[in-house]
Amino acid sequence: MEQATAKLFEGLVNQDRASLARSITLVESSNLQKRHQAQLLLTCVLQYLKTENAKSARGVKSFRIGISGPPGAGKSTFIEKFGKFLTGTGHRVAVLAVDPSSSTTGGSLLADKTRMPKLSVDPNAFIRPSPSSGTLGGVARNTCEAAVLCEGAGFDTIVIETVGVGQSEFAVADMVDLFCLLIPPASGDEMQGIKRGIVEVADLVVVNKSDGDLEGAARRVQAEYTSALKFVKQRTPLWKPKAISQGGDLKKKREQQMHVWMWRHIHERMMEIFRKDQTVAKNLSELENMVSQGIVTPGLAADILLEKFLKKL
Amino acid sequence: MEQATAKLFEGLVNQDRASLARSITLVESSNLQKRHQAQLLLTCVLQYLKTENAKSARGVKSFRIGISGPPGAGKSTFIEKFGKFLTGTGHRVAVLAVDPSSSTTGGSLLADKTRMPKLSVDPNAFIRPSPSSGTLGGVARNTCEAAVLCEGAGFDTIVIETVGVGQSEFAVADMVDLFCLLIPPASGDEMQGIKRGIVEVADLVVVNKSDGDLEGAARRVQAEYTSALKFVKQRTPLWKPKAISQGGDLKKKREQQMHVWMWRHIHERMMEIFRKDQTVAKNLSELENMVSQGIVTPGLAADILLEKFLKKL
Repeated sequence: MEQATAKLFEGLVNQDRASLARSITLVESSNLQKRHQAQLLLTCVLQYLKTENAKSARGVKSFRIGISGPPGAGKSTFIEKFGKFLTGTGHRVAVLAVDPSSSTTGGSLLADKTRMPKLSVDPNAFIRPSPSSGTLGGVARNTCEAAVLCEGAGFDTIVIETVGVGQSEFAVADMVDLFCLLIPPASGDEMQGIKRGIVEVADLVVVNKSDGDLEGAARRVQAEYTSALKFVKQRTPLWKPKAISQGGDLKKKREQQMHVWMWRHIHERMMEIFRKDQTVAKNLSELENMVSQGIVTPGLAADILLEKFLKKL
Repeated sequence: MEQATAKLFEGLVNQDRASLARSITLVESSNLQKRHQAQLLLTCVLQYLKTENAKSARGVKSFRIGISGPPGAGKSTFIEKFGKFLTGTGHRVAVLAVDPSSSTTGGSLLADKTRMPKLSVDPNAFIRPSPSSGTLGGVARNTCEAAVLCEGAGFDTIVIETVGVGQSEFAVADMVDLFCLLIPPASGDEMQGIKRGIVEVADLVVVNKSDGDLEGAARRVQAEYTSALKFVKQRTPLWKPKAISQGGDLKKKREQQMHVWMWRHIHERMMEIFRKDQTVAKNLSELENMVSQGIVTPGLAADILLEKFLKKL
């Protein structure tokens, strides 16, 4: 291993915050040489974690929690309180915020110091906003890899927060051990910004802000969700609270998730290659128009484009 | 156009049932030469439909209805009654049954004569089971194309039935104008076989068998679903009953669906090409194992496989 990367690895496993920050930056880089360094670093961290995780009865030493919810649900306040509770009981907490919108809007998240004033200065916490550019696939990959680095740096609780833009919640649901949906005490009728299907991928639905004047409203919302959740199948067999920390189950779930992610990366890249192919690009809009106008079937249009692409193979 | 195909086209648009049946068989064929004939036929039918549809104020002359539901919901009986009602009021009804399981199980659908005794002998109805082999993608493509042929043969109502195996309901939801979920009067707690997320893609949920002793149970189930559906966003802007048959909306929805299908076909084929690549096939299981064991990240495994695949390009 190159010396700079070796030094970064050593700093990381010795829980040096600056080394962790630099490692995440390295993983986020799109520079080809840096990506090679990043992959080398990640491979070493994975090797290190294998030994560490083997020491745990659960098969993994960390726990990954996804937190999502519509604007106004109180995510920042919740994570601030929850994070402080965890660090107060001896845990080390890393918060990764996924915000794919930030590349176009300049970021919808406020500065961490404003959002989580106490947690952001806690020596046992580490907060990192998402990279500010790239596709959801790219952001998701970076977040997955940043979580591995945080685990290497000894953080035992990884909170992955999503601001609920695009499909980011669904991506986050597939990279955590427990996905928690935070909602304000507003009923389904009133509520805006809850995405179709998101209730179904949640392991836990928390009605936030349910005190004081809002207690009654919160109880009604709880009843509504309880009823709605009857229509949702059990997400994983391990979702019986008693079993969740038993040996092997969590490890198995993570293995499945990693396979899902490997195929997602391949998918995304293959379609990118297809779309960027010169012959495809040249003919795409004409064929899309022909499909719209009912001149060719979608199947035939697909065949024609694929034929043009595959001629080169 | 070759003479046999020209004859088929002529028979089809003259509403000859045998020509329609033979045309669908042609479309289902995997023989390369027959596929070419099929595409030629489909292109002609599309051309013919453009003229026909232009005569309709709605932009399309037919209406496509998807019917899905768990076993025991009463789909066959419902379609029999509904179909007879339609033919009794002057409509011509085609029923296409999607059953991707039939390739492995020998078919989970009974013969049409047993399932729908009256509709199967009605001269204004046409019932066709799905092809008995192929992937969901293949079956879906055949069903889309069979629907076009039925429209060419003058059927103004196309019912696409799915037996609820695998992801077939979701595929059907994307090829119809209205997707109807049929459920028996059993509450969410008791009900088996309703798929996660299926309620959300339904335009209409019908509680079937809600008479006699079951009336009370049916009312309770209706209330449960009404409550659950509050958490579901409006699927399309045109889902306001008043607007559904207004000019252009339905046409626009179909155009969007056709683009979705074009990209799905490309997707499926690209991934097939990737998986069947010799170098990929040779290295896949080893890399999947390395991912499982935490030796490489999913991202790196994807990169390695893609690099091997792309070397040939």
